[in-house]
Amino acid sequence: MTLPASWTSPVPVPDAAYRQQALDRQQLLTKPPGSLGRLEQLAVDLAAQQATHRPRADQVHMAVFAGDHGVCDEGISAFPRAVTGQMIANFAEGGAAISVLSRHLEATLEVLNLGTVEPLGHLPGVNNLQIAPGTANLAQQPAMTHDQVTAALCAGDAVAERAASAGAQLFIGGDMGIGNTTTAAVLACALLNDDPEALAGPGTGLDAAGVSHKVEVIRRALQRHGDNRDPLAVLTSLGGLEIAALTGALLGCAARRIPVLVDGFIVSVAALVAVRQRPGARAWLHFAHRSAEPGHDRVLAAMEARPLLDLGMRLGEGSGAAVAVNLLRAACSLHNSMATFRDAGVSNRED
Amino acid sequence: MTLPASWTSPVPVPDAAYRQQALDRQQLLTKPPGSLGRLEQLAVDLAAQQATHRPRADQVHMAVFAGDHGVCDEGISAFPRAVTGQMIANFAEGGAAISVLSRHLEATLEVLNLGTVEPLGHLPGVNNLQIAPGTANLAQQPAMTHDQVTAALCAGDAVAERAASAGAQLFIGGDMGIGNTTTAAVLACALLNDDPEALAGPGTGLDAAGVSHKVEVIRRALQRHGDNRDPLAVLTSLGGLEIAALTGALLGCAARRIPVLVDGFIVSVAALVAVRQRPGARAWLHFAHRSAEPGHDRVLAAMEARPLLDLGMRLGEGSGAAVAVNLLRAACSLHNSMATFRDAGVSNRED
Repeated sequence: MTLPASWTSPVPVPDAAYRQQALDRQQLLTKPPGSLGRLEQLAVDLAAQQATHRPRADQVHMAVFAGDHGVCDEGISAFPRAVTGQMIANFAEGGAAISVLSRHLEATLEVLNLGTVEPLGHLPGVNNLQIAPGTANLAQQPAMTHDQVTAALCAGDAVAERAASAGAQLFIGGDMGIGNTTTAAVLACALLNDDPEALAGPGTGLDAAGVSHKVEVIRRALQRHGDNRDPLAVLTSLGGLEIAALTGALLGCAARRIPVLVDGFIVSVAALVAVRQRPGARAWLHFAHRSAEPGHDRVLAAMEARPLLDLGMRLGEGSGAAVAVNLLRAACSLHNSMATFRDAGVSNRED
Repeated sequence: MTLPASWTSPVPVPDAAYRQQALDRQQLLTKPPGSLGRLEQLAVDLAAQQATHRPRADQVHMAVFAGDHGVCDEGISAFPRAVTGQMIANFAEGGAAISVLSRHLEATLEVLNLGTVEPLGHLPGVNNLQIAPGTANLAQQPAMTHDQVTAALCAGDAVAERAASAGAQLFIGGDMGIGNTTTAAVLACALLNDDPEALAGPGTGLDAAGVSHKVEVIRRALQRHGDNRDPLAVLTSLGGLEIAALTGALLGCAARRIPVLVDGFIVSVAALVAVRQRPGARAWLHFAHRSAEPGHDRVLAAMEARPLLDLGMRLGEGSGAAVAVNLLRAACSLHNSMATFRDAGVSNRED
């Protein structure tokens, strides 16, 4: 297998001329300059990314990537591993948070199983890729082989290709994988050379002793892995199938000029891998929310990201990003539909 | 004229039984407990307020209240006073931020002119009450007479009555009035016995010298007014027509069991007046966003309010609240439509 082109090719740059036109338009709308706060910058960024006078976030392509984690053998999750597969069924049947939110937004929702310990039977609405029966236990050995990580990156890139074909104006990736806050914390520690104590949190609901044990497991994984900070090496050795697919999807969207609304801790770590590999990808990322998972702040800071929401969410699935979509839609509506001072006959401050 | 009943009658209490049922339901949904963060509490609060198993924020009744401020004679605004009337026309014609957002939300939008210096001609879609040609200059004399403040409170209460008749599930009030950050700051200082330097901000765009002058004007108003902290006395002496109407609307909604999503600095000050008069009204208020106007924090803290958004908005009109509506809608959708662990066959952490 070969890596997707988006892993190695230069990333396109948002359009500077449309950015300037959008900035100019914001000054003409019937409001004091700057009074819509971050909504103004959102509209300007989307105009540059979409290379349009009229940015939109109506066509949202969402994909939730699921996979199991061998590190669950170390007892680092509050929920049993079987929940990964059960939740994949719940996504497909429409009962999960991201299912509800995707309907609420009239968004497309893809469900991808990258690999569960127990193979799933046929589930309508699930793209059942089963690259591996979950990852290996990263505390003891590399999580994935080169072929496995490549397949996961390609699966994510293929989602971006489908999003582009569907005319998506915005992409959201979500995650499901019991144990994946441990995996994400390991990845962040390795890429940021940071301390496990700063990155490990309660995940779905560990107590203090559980978090201490998680820190210990992360330390073992980092010792085993060593000092190699190459993004592909780190992802292969310490990643998850769904996190690798998310990384591939984010790079694939950047390559295809599709803006991305990044969800919480897990997806932000996938974004960190993406940005370490292709720094230009950062220009295509919006950050939806600050997760309650304490390590999220370090990951956001490493990308100079300021999330839009801070609601104490920590569910994953892309749910925080889904909740933030309407901020982008509101920003676009205001940018596109407000009257100018001249049109409305309203005096500006200089008048 | 007599004050509306909601000014003096006890405020109803949200329904405790529906609150408990909603709390119980949140524990059954397919997510780690608490993982939806503040969205869970929002759904629970709305269930208690609406006395229902299935809270909703679909039917939103919005009203923007406009009026002029005599204190503009002191030169405390970056925009000319004529803008109040011009913006009323812009609301009605659909070009203002709140017009765009109300369409985006499919919400009802009432536009009320409580009183401009220059009388408006007939404007389709504007409820032109013209209680007075703006307020008097509160730095020199009482802003309103007893009859004027009573008429404004009654106008707000009548909006709440129309919202109730229309079956509103949520109310949003907005403000428009050149000079009204000065008026709101004076009111907050009087009610909180706080310092003008902490409450005065740039409003639509004053520079540092302008803010210093604004502080001086506020000091003069407070000296003239004296120590009377009775809410009606403060509102009459130091208020604005649109702020009084907002106070009446908020109390009217609480009296009719309609939850309110409070906008930024101006509406929060109206809420403060309401809560000082009827503390039980607090239980009906959600706070949408933290305004960039620096005094807002003090006003929020006085009501122990934690706003949902912090996007640097400072436009008024109800725009911050309108942008936050979809958070309530998402919270309701999740609460009402997610599968339970049992229905979805997903293992809970105790399994």
